[in-house]
Amino acid sequence: MADINSKFDIGVTTGPIRGSRKVHIGAKSGSGIQVAMREIDLEGGEPSVRVYDTSGPYTDANATIDIRAGLEQKRREWILARGDVEEYDAREVKPEDNGQLGPDRSGGVPAFPNVHKRVLRAKPGANVSQMHYARQGIITPEMEYVAERENLGREYIRREIEGNSWGAEIPEYVTPEFVRDELARGRAIIPNNINHPESEPMAIGRNFLVKINANIGNSAVASDVAAEVDKMVWSIRWGADTVMDLSTGRNIHDTREWIIRNSPVPIGTVPIYQALEKVGGVAEDLTWEIFRDTLIEQAEQGVDYFTIHAGVRLPYVPMAAKRVTGIVSRGGSIMAKWCLAHHKESFLYEHFDDITEIMKAYDIAYSLGDGLRPGSIADANDEAQFAELYTLGELTHRAWKSDVQVMIEGPGHVPMHKIKENMTKQLEVCGEAPFYTLGPLVTDIAPGYDHITSGIGAAQIGWYGTAMLCYVTPKEHLGLPDRDDVKVGVVTYKLAAHAADLAKGHPAAQVRDDALSKARFEFRWRDQFNLSLDPDTAEEFHDQTLPAEGAKTAHFCSMCGPKFCSMKISQEVRDFASKQNQSADGFLESEKWGADTAEASRKAAEQGMREMSELYKAKGDKLYLPEEETE
Amino acid sequence: MADINSKFDIGVTTGPIRGSRKVHIGAKSGSGIQVAMREIDLEGGEPSVRVYDTSGPYTDANATIDIRAGLEQKRREWILARGDVEEYDAREVKPEDNGQLGPDRSGGVPAFPNVHKRVLRAKPGANVSQMHYARQGIITPEMEYVAERENLGREYIRREIEGNSWGAEIPEYVTPEFVRDELARGRAIIPNNINHPESEPMAIGRNFLVKINANIGNSAVASDVAAEVDKMVWSIRWGADTVMDLSTGRNIHDTREWIIRNSPVPIGTVPIYQALEKVGGVAEDLTWEIFRDTLIEQAEQGVDYFTIHAGVRLPYVPMAAKRVTGIVSRGGSIMAKWCLAHHKESFLYEHFDDITEIMKAYDIAYSLGDGLRPGSIADANDEAQFAELYTLGELTHRAWKSDVQVMIEGPGHVPMHKIKENMTKQLEVCGEAPFYTLGPLVTDIAPGYDHITSGIGAAQIGWYGTAMLCYVTPKEHLGLPDRDDVKVGVVTYKLAAHAADLAKGHPAAQVRDDALSKARFEFRWRDQFNLSLDPDTAEEFHDQTLPAEGAKTAHFCSMCGPKFCSMKISQEVRDFASKQNQSADGFLESEKWGADTAEASRKAAEQGMREMSELYKAKGDKLYLPEEETE
Repeated sequence: MADINSKFDIGVTTGPIRGSRKVHIGAKSGSGIQVAMREIDLEGGEPSVRVYDTSGPYTDANATIDIRAGLEQKRREWILARGDVEEYDAREVKPEDNGQLGPDRSGGVPAFPNVHKRVLRAKPGANVSQMHYARQGIITPEMEYVAERENLGREYIRREIEGNSWGAEIPEYVTPEFVRDELARGRAIIPNNINHPESEPMAIGRNFLVKINANIGNSAVASDVAAEVDKMVWSIRWGADTVMDLSTGRNIHDTREWIIRNSPVPIGTVPIYQALEKVGGVAEDLTWEIFRDTLIEQAEQGVDYFTIHAGVRLPYVPMAAKRVTGIVSRGGSIMAKWCLAHHKESFLYEHFDDITEIMKAYDIAYSLGDGLRPGSIADANDEAQFAELYTLGELTHRAWKSDVQVMIEGPGHVPMHKIKENMTKQLEVCGEAPFYTLGPLVTDIAPGYDHITSGIGAAQIGWYGTAMLCYVTPKEHLGLPDRDDVKVGVVTYKLAAHAADLAKGHPAAQVRDDALSKARFEFRWRDQFNLSLDPDTAEEFHDQTLPAEGAKTAHFCSMCGPKFCSMKISQEVRDFASKQNQSADGFLESEKWGADTAEASRKAAEQGMREMSELYKAKGDKLYLPEEETE
Repeated sequence: MADINSKFDIGVTTGPIRGSRKVHIGAKSGSGIQVAMREIDLEGGEPSVRVYDTSGPYTDANATIDIRAGLEQKRREWILARGDVEEYDAREVKPEDNGQLGPDRSGGVPAFPNVHKRVLRAKPGANVSQMHYARQGIITPEMEYVAERENLGREYIRREIEGNSWGAEIPEYVTPEFVRDELARGRAIIPNNINHPESEPMAIGRNFLVKINANIGNSAVASDVAAEVDKMVWSIRWGADTVMDLSTGRNIHDTREWIIRNSPVPIGTVPIYQALEKVGGVAEDLTWEIFRDTLIEQAEQGVDYFTIHAGVRLPYVPMAAKRVTGIVSRGGSIMAKWCLAHHKESFLYEHFDDITEIMKAYDIAYSLGDGLRPGSIADANDEAQFAELYTLGELTHRAWKSDVQVMIEGPGHVPMHKIKENMTKQLEVCGEAPFYTLGPLVTDIAPGYDHITSGIGAAQIGWYGTAMLCYVTPKEHLGLPDRDDVKVGVVTYKLAAHAADLAKGHPAAQVRDDALSKARFEFRWRDQFNLSLDPDTAEEFHDQTLPAEGAKTAHFCSMCGPKFCSMKISQEVRDFASKQNQSADGFLESEKWGADTAEASRKAAEQGMREMSELYKAKGDKLYLPEEETE
């Protein structure tokens, strides 16, 4: 065990992101709630830029990190203050929870040293979901936190919002009441299990900033606990808003405990994976009882949302038989196999209301799984996919009857012209519940680059209204991602989500683009790096050709060199033009002159088109010489 | 000199792309024209897949490559056969053409050993542009070549074309006549200078496959001739349809000669760069005469298209003064500086018709430069940008009066909701001349990842109708790209262009996605790699966790392992389902059962929404408890 323990001395990355400073902003209500964000200080007298921050205490220079102790349980007092929970003894961890680990735990990993022996659940008859509180008209501390966080702690400033949000209702300023209303409608969720008091509340919804998820987790073939905890910390450093632990190998229970106790972001899982491990990988041996026990086990640990593939129904399975890539969802394929083998309707569908009772006792959100999502361009938007979506719509409304939070998972592989239909149908059928897609990938032909093929689709569907984008790494389709892949996936999805915020006209989004571009134009290289999503890489790339410290204030880089740098010449032009404006030379000031010239050009272009058109008619429609005329 | 010469023994990459075989397909007309493509052979009895190929003889196992000799001049006989050109002595290369190189050429590079001392131009009064031939009703060998190439040599097959091309007119099958008609209308161009007979003809136009361009070229600060020739060969290996040599350092003339003589793809330049070098980098010292001489110099070498920033007009320059990032185009900033310093209209604009006379004598296409493109999200779609576009429209029609080929350059940095407007305006004002954009980048905040921020915009604007996408590498804004950056940029843009073809409903596009996905589903790993845009990287990523040869036929990878591979389980499901279908168990065959179930779900979802809505009304619109009601 000594060896295994010492592994844990290696590498969760701590320390501030280069150029950033952690800040805690008090909620405007004066309640004392402190919301974590970070600020980037700039040179040249420029105001600091505050940005949304998912990295938790790991990037706080003032925090002490001890992954054996876990994070501070900041939400515990809020949860207890509501007076609707009871404490009880957690379920015993069984060998099968960790892949048949014997009592000597050989081949296993150290259990988390500070497991909560006593856990929380709703008092009998109570409902502890944020949606339930919202519908009672209660504004919780979690809602306050979210409001402040989404505003980046800024004051209300009237700002002309430009963009096209396709009918979303993004407010100029987020109030706790707005958060409450969105939760009550089901249009947003705050995923936070009462047994995960370490989490910093966040919202997933179309009218908030677009969020991203990073997937981690081992497989039977690769990776270990230390690497997975490190990946979680690494992924949130770069911007992951939630993390899913998709482990399918050994030590699933212990791995998850280490992750949740140390995670400031919501953690999602797919409970059917662990259930399958418990029956030795034989899908046909799954039962509702084993599944239910797994739900309780994970609920007590503090999982914030469960992917439940209750839409993979027996009648739908044959629809997938004619596909090019069948069923690409692990959970979906497992349930399909079970349904066919037993010739019965999915037990997840049949027991849905029982699952809902568990969700509401711990405030776990549904992530209604897209088990029949298309895994190839050929299968996009097919019958199987939308059949499942309709069932997810039905289940959304069933869950909402119990005030349980719901989000809907989505595709997949979808060519660009078919993306919009997905958003439209989902909004219609699922009552505007938040949409949470995997990409989508807009072509199949680039394994090795699927963070990009999917980033293209993700940016678009995020713009159309998708609330959270599940990342894809360069290793997709090829193998388990390592920490470098995790970072590339996260940054790709952050930029896609931000591009969607910009296009939707989110009032807070463009501040960062403007600050970075201004820094770029003024050759404040360090500021440009520090404002970027990945300051380390930006600086590294710059320094590959110009490493000297003096280059950080040079008015050029190696792309063009000093004579050809357009930004440098631009500055000279601007200085020159403003000197000219001070002279008697009135016309250079004249915006009208420029506008008139442009108008004259436009008319000349139209004239050119008219002349072409007349020439065409004059030649008896023969200017372009139809086929019969050619030699 | 010996050292410099020996550098040229290093690294142009030759040899077939892994898994591909060069083929030459005879044009259907029976004219004897052979069109280069490549085929990917598959396992398991699957038909070979033929793909468009830009890599030239470098990937032909049967070709002998000698970069000192240059490529075969395959087009020469076609050009001479038209009987409208004359041969003459090329202009003498002057020291200033290579950055003030002395007669001993010290500090320079070896001149290309097989320079054409005698070059071609149109006979007096003749016009050798492909547009001119097209308007005469002539189908040239170049047009035939293009038609066969765009069809990938396939037969006519009636196929249901699905997609949304936003009003483009993509044919099911490309005939030489169709190519002629598109050229005559100006809707497409075939850029090929009569002095670049080594080129394999290609078309740029909305109704053809979306093309991509790779930028290479040294700067005063970085790179050298050997590296640039290598980059050209490397970029076309991975799919660049044209290459621009944007060199701004020394040895511009010699560098370009080595590149053109060895390039099977069209080469573009920005002549103002070399003109600026000739006047020692002092923009104010530029003159029309020096520029004109540079045009002739480059025309004789065989440059296929020139970027001409004739839209940066004096009245527009002050418009750029209020921008966040001013003028980001090198050429645009140079011309702006000249205009202001001289207080005169741009000499490019004033002498446009003189430039046109040169273009038509060599068949060089205009790439009308977007000198005032936006270099930041804040500047997108502003007055300066569209003022220039209107002038480019005016100039398009002027050039067309002389039957000279034209394409229009475009932005830049544009948030997603503003992209469509660019396409719409350009189509309107420029008479559907091909659009050639740089991205656009959809956010500024990710230097280091700008191949991705721009790939997102490029895929969208390619879908909307842009004919060619100019790549961006990870080094954008930070430094000169190296060969690894070139490859990443090319593959990113290839996947974006292909995604656009798919979305437009191009009849030939989806074949590759389907073949790759089928290979993926059937665990033909080698086929999956070979069909991908970058087989080397795909295999390398897979082998990072599963290098053993046996893994290439394994029914899993390290992402999920054998128990959890959804594709493996999917296969089992499919086999099981088809066995069941053979039994008396009729209902599993019933598609109606699945469809009925889905319909029932959809109705249940609608019912759920109605109930929610009635509950809302029943509570007097208070279900979501408007602000006044909250505690």
